[in-house]
Amino acid sequence: MSLSLRPSRADLTAALCPESIAIIGASDNPHKVGGRPLMYLSRFGFRGRVYPINPARDVVQGVRAYSELAAVPETPDLAIIAVSAAQAPDAVRACAAKGVKVAIVMAAGFGETTDPNGRLAEQQMVAEARQTGMRIVGPNSQGLANFGSGAVASFSTMFVEVAPADGPVAIVSQSGVMSVVPYGLLRERGIGVRHSHATGNEADVTLAELALAVLQDPEVRLLLLYIESIRDAAMLGRAADFAREREVPIVAVKSGRTTRGAQAARSHTGALASDDQVVEAFLRGHGIWRVSDMHGLVRTTELYLKDWRPRGRELVIVSNSGASGVMAADTAAELGLPLATISDTTRRALAAGLPDFASVANPIDITAALLTDSQLFGSLLPVLAREPAADLFLLALPVAGEGYDVAALTRDAAAFAAQTNKPVVVAAPQDSVAAWFRSAGLPTFANQTDAIAALAQLASHEGLRRRRPAPMSLALTVRLPAGASPLLNEADSLAFLENHGLPVVPYVLCLSADDARRAYARFGGAVAVKACSDQAPHKSDRGLVVLDVRSADDAAAAFTRLMTRLGDLKLGRDGIIVAPMIAARRELALGARIDPTFGPVVMVSDGGRYIEALPDRAVLLAPFDGDAARVAWQSLRIAPLFDGVRGEPPLDLEALCAATVRLGQIAAAGSGQLASLDLNPVMARAAGDGVVIVDALVERAVPQ
Amino acid sequence: MSLSLRPSRADLTAALCPESIAIIGASDNPHKVGGRPLMYLSRFGFRGRVYPINPARDVVQGVRAYSELAAVPETPDLAIIAVSAAQAPDAVRACAAKGVKVAIVMAAGFGETTDPNGRLAEQQMVAEARQTGMRIVGPNSQGLANFGSGAVASFSTMFVEVAPADGPVAIVSQSGVMSVVPYGLLRERGIGVRHSHATGNEADVTLAELALAVLQDPEVRLLLLYIESIRDAAMLGRAADFAREREVPIVAVKSGRTTRGAQAARSHTGALASDDQVVEAFLRGHGIWRVSDMHGLVRTTELYLKDWRPRGRELVIVSNSGASGVMAADTAAELGLPLATISDTTRRALAAGLPDFASVANPIDITAALLTDSQLFGSLLPVLAREPAADLFLLALPVAGEGYDVAALTRDAAAFAAQTNKPVVVAAPQDSVAAWFRSAGLPTFANQTDAIAALAQLASHEGLRRRRPAPMSLALTVRLPAGASPLLNEADSLAFLENHGLPVVPYVLCLSADDARRAYARFGGAVAVKACSDQAPHKSDRGLVVLDVRSADDAAAAFTRLMTRLGDLKLGRDGIIVAPMIAARRELALGARIDPTFGPVVMVSDGGRYIEALPDRAVLLAPFDGDAARVAWQSLRIAPLFDGVRGEPPLDLEALCAATVRLGQIAAAGSGQLASLDLNPVMARAAGDGVVIVDALVERAVPQ
Repeated sequence: MSLSLRPSRADLTAALCPESIAIIGASDNPHKVGGRPLMYLSRFGFRGRVYPINPARDVVQGVRAYSELAAVPETPDLAIIAVSAAQAPDAVRACAAKGVKVAIVMAAGFGETTDPNGRLAEQQMVAEARQTGMRIVGPNSQGLANFGSGAVASFSTMFVEVAPADGPVAIVSQSGVMSVVPYGLLRERGIGVRHSHATGNEADVTLAELALAVLQDPEVRLLLLYIESIRDAAMLGRAADFAREREVPIVAVKSGRTTRGAQAARSHTGALASDDQVVEAFLRGHGIWRVSDMHGLVRTTELYLKDWRPRGRELVIVSNSGASGVMAADTAAELGLPLATISDTTRRALAAGLPDFASVANPIDITAALLTDSQLFGSLLPVLAREPAADLFLLALPVAGEGYDVAALTRDAAAFAAQTNKPVVVAAPQDSVAAWFRSAGLPTFANQTDAIAALAQLASHEGLRRRRPAPMSLALTVRLPAGASPLLNEADSLAFLENHGLPVVPYVLCLSADDARRAYARFGGAVAVKACSDQAPHKSDRGLVVLDVRSADDAAAAFTRLMTRLGDLKLGRDGIIVAPMIAARRELALGARIDPTFGPVVMVSDGGRYIEALPDRAVLLAPFDGDAARVAWQSLRIAPLFDGVRGEPPLDLEALCAATVRLGQIAAAGSGQLASLDLNPVMARAAGDGVVIVDALVERAVPQ
Repeated sequence: MSLSLRPSRADLTAALCPESIAIIGASDNPHKVGGRPLMYLSRFGFRGRVYPINPARDVVQGVRAYSELAAVPETPDLAIIAVSAAQAPDAVRACAAKGVKVAIVMAAGFGETTDPNGRLAEQQMVAEARQTGMRIVGPNSQGLANFGSGAVASFSTMFVEVAPADGPVAIVSQSGVMSVVPYGLLRERGIGVRHSHATGNEADVTLAELALAVLQDPEVRLLLLYIESIRDAAMLGRAADFAREREVPIVAVKSGRTTRGAQAARSHTGALASDDQVVEAFLRGHGIWRVSDMHGLVRTTELYLKDWRPRGRELVIVSNSGASGVMAADTAAELGLPLATISDTTRRALAAGLPDFASVANPIDITAALLTDSQLFGSLLPVLAREPAADLFLLALPVAGEGYDVAALTRDAAAFAAQTNKPVVVAAPQDSVAAWFRSAGLPTFANQTDAIAALAQLASHEGLRRRRPAPMSLALTVRLPAGASPLLNEADSLAFLENHGLPVVPYVLCLSADDARRAYARFGGAVAVKACSDQAPHKSDRGLVVLDVRSADDAAAAFTRLMTRLGDLKLGRDGIIVAPMIAARRELALGARIDPTFGPVVMVSDGGRYIEALPDRAVLLAPFDGDAARVAWQSLRIAPLFDGVRGEPPLDLEALCAATVRLGQIAAAGSGQLASLDLNPVMARAAGDGVVIVDALVERAVPQ
């Protein structure tokens, strides 16, 4: 196996395919943390050299042991540190001194606790390892297991519970348990797993690095991740991009998606909480399919391993039960799979072979007639195989067995799958029936809802995987006005946006009542008069805005009132702004901020008074293109308004998307200088009339 | 067994506990539709008399047979008609002539098809049966199976696949397959099923009747329903009320919940589609828990059969995996189960028994330390059993087995469950581990998400079951004004509502421009001027409303304009209405209609221009009380506004609920006279200021 295709930050070959392994704290008892890896290395065919370290024994589990690492006759590639938390730092020091490339620290009681001593000890171990270039996996790691190389450096009991078999699946997890539960579920279904790695506290080596490393293993065809905290988004993005290139799907649980879950994650591995909408956008943007639990992680495995790449989402349901078809139609609708409209040609051909009371509309209901005539399947499926409208097939057999020729049904279904080369799954709650279809290599589910969910995941994930990431736009240079205040006042904020290509309302910054009069004269009609101060965000709530001013006198009066009010509030007085009132079909909002983990994040949102109380928003990670912006806007609850309802004209979604893309470019190009941009309201007008940003607040980045 | 407690429309004892059964079309081949029931009756211990009818044989499956029904020496209680669709009508006629009490028609090809001959034949069979008082189950019925009496009058193959055992569960289904799939899933888990009945086309006997009948069986402790169409809501309501009295929970799949699913149901059993929100309200109102698929139907069975009645929703999660705890916390949050805040006393006691790196906050993370010390469970659980904040417990063991003392863990968990007497479920993906806990009688799930979903269902269903239905209010008499027009004009609509106790805007119906002037003088300020015609609903869209009129002259001008416009539109001219503009904190809407299946239905909704395009509404079935109205309003997306946000005062939810209840009373009392009532907008003002109905449209029922 070669890991040399794309070296990660440091080469983790020594972790995954070591030629020699030392086990510090090796135990003669194969049921102990220090004994189990030794047992696994011999049992699972590791062909390199193994050096048990145990000061009290010459031989451990039949292997010659050494009293200390220094006494080992070569420099091991990998060291398993299976001693207590108290002894681990010394062991790390010894490994670094010996020149070990990677050390796995298994003991818990470090950075995952609230104990400052534990945290400090963890940092010191990493610091000492860095001096010699040694990498540390853990602490608090259950270990790494590569069933391709036999390097099973793990103390999990799962590999005793369920025998391993090498195969195309790789699992990388921040949790020990979640590195092996998917392994167990897959192995019980007869699927081979090559990699099962747990990173633990990630004091040094991260999940993203290990993900990139296992993706360089050409045998890996599916990568499963369990994530509590994305620490190095850029590295995970690289791994995902490489997976896309290699056409390896990635499925991930990212837990802590609720507030309470995020709290629990913090107390589990000290995970940092990120805004879950941002996490979601990151994963989707990188073509990673997100699931919510351990069963979800493995549900679709067989479909991925078939290399089915559905070209659409149109489902055909075939069942011997009308009820099953009805429930499947409900589930499909809820999961966004339309039912294919079967062509007349196909319908006629189907009707010829089915009893009168059967239904040849989709869902196709063979009815209980299948019991008396098992040939129905065989005459119907070849017809369906040629149906051009179908992208996905569900064969649902809620009842079969006794009296049915299940062998023939299985043969017909397998021939059908081979003929169509489109995804075909079987739902059969009776395991005796399911076993037939499984043995014929068809993905088979006890639960029909799971079967449809798997098809929906395959089709949706295919959509994500096909979407090319938007290229980073480099043309823009961002220049903020000089100044020390963390916020730009409204005039500077609007000018900044305008200078960088966004459509803002015309305005005049007035420094006197006469200025206000002249500004009114310039715009006429109805104007807004707003205090301008780099210390005054949230102007409306503080009485710093006068709307619908309709004369020069009133504008001058408003000037005076607002300047006084700024003084009363002891806020800097940069003047007041006069701007025309802009009529909008809908008030919307845009925002951007630089996320410490994920970089520039853009928020698209419905606007108005209840923007916080009744949120309706979506996020985008820059860079993104107009299509992505459109998808984000169309995902809002208010999306129907974009098309126009009740005789209203459609909104200018094109201009809105252009502004959204521009904001993403500004945020990306200005990452070092900007902390956030708040554009609210953004006045959306009828198609062709554009959008107008009426108020804005730009926040500088705090210099590091 | 006695079914005499509460007789249903006609007594179905003969169907469930017959003393004698004839099988028309009895076959010697036990794998045929006419052979299987005979085999079942002998195999499953039916102790009554059985009369195979077969013109060609003297003995069928070893039982003396008769050439025709007329030759049978007694009148059988029940007849199984297992002949073809063509022969079924004759068989029905023969049964009626013989005096049979109930006939089960198994053949398909009747009302479930689009063939008018089939539909007609079905109607004729029912008509002939009615002449002698015979009841018909089916046609297109798989049959009825009562494992208590041994009366297994079904041709399902499932009872061969999975051996029956009598027990506390009853299944009544409109689908044959769905009468036996839950049976199979439950039997495989060792749970006894007494009733498994399929109603088929329900030409006569309905699911609701059979539900009521099986509920009269004192052995039944849980009722599972599969419904495609609720045909007799009142009977199902009676059954549900009786189940509530008997404390028997009902869980139902009501399929066809999406448009596509409803279409599929129509082509399956000719099911009528009902607005799914109304179905949902009906089921909830009757304490029936709705699930979405066959696995959902059986998921929570063990918990119900424990007779656990949780008093709250506060969950405690205990796991040997932090990741498992994090995912459980996410799932719990999404399912609306708060995590219990563990008391300090309990925490201290827990901390004393756990390693430092374990977490005693909820989720409680025992960590992998459980592997080396299986006693941790036993020392921790008795402490938790005394925790007053806990209502529900999840014990999650994603990894155990080899190296763990699973026997001891099981003992400790079982003792804990006995001690707390609160719901305790176990999640264990390894079946070898799960088997231990199952054998100790603990509800055990492979999938942790399922385990939490079962707890959430139990707790939520308990909430529904505890809610007493609102008593029918009888005091109200509804009087509609005389007239023939299907719609009341706005003046009459408002007057009708006011006369029946609802708060409406003051208004004047004007028949001249001078009337309009006087009306303006009466109200002053800003008024609305609206055309009044019983032919003019949707006034705003047709230019028949002038808002914000601020002088008597303008009111007079508006009068003239609107009367002209009514004339131009060729609409009846009942005058114009002048009414003061009412300021609202929020425009809402209320509606009511008489549903042909479910009776009076009230809709509560956010208001405004986009009421259709961006729906935010809930429905209530009358009668309901103020608490139910509050729950409905609080279920809307705009619910945060009721409490007041951004410094706004709260809305007058009390007045809103009172109006909602009143509307329900009017709709219920006026069911024969009213078709619908549309109150839009309903102006919600600050708490204490009430609500005002500003426009209304009352629609008369079309006389039958």
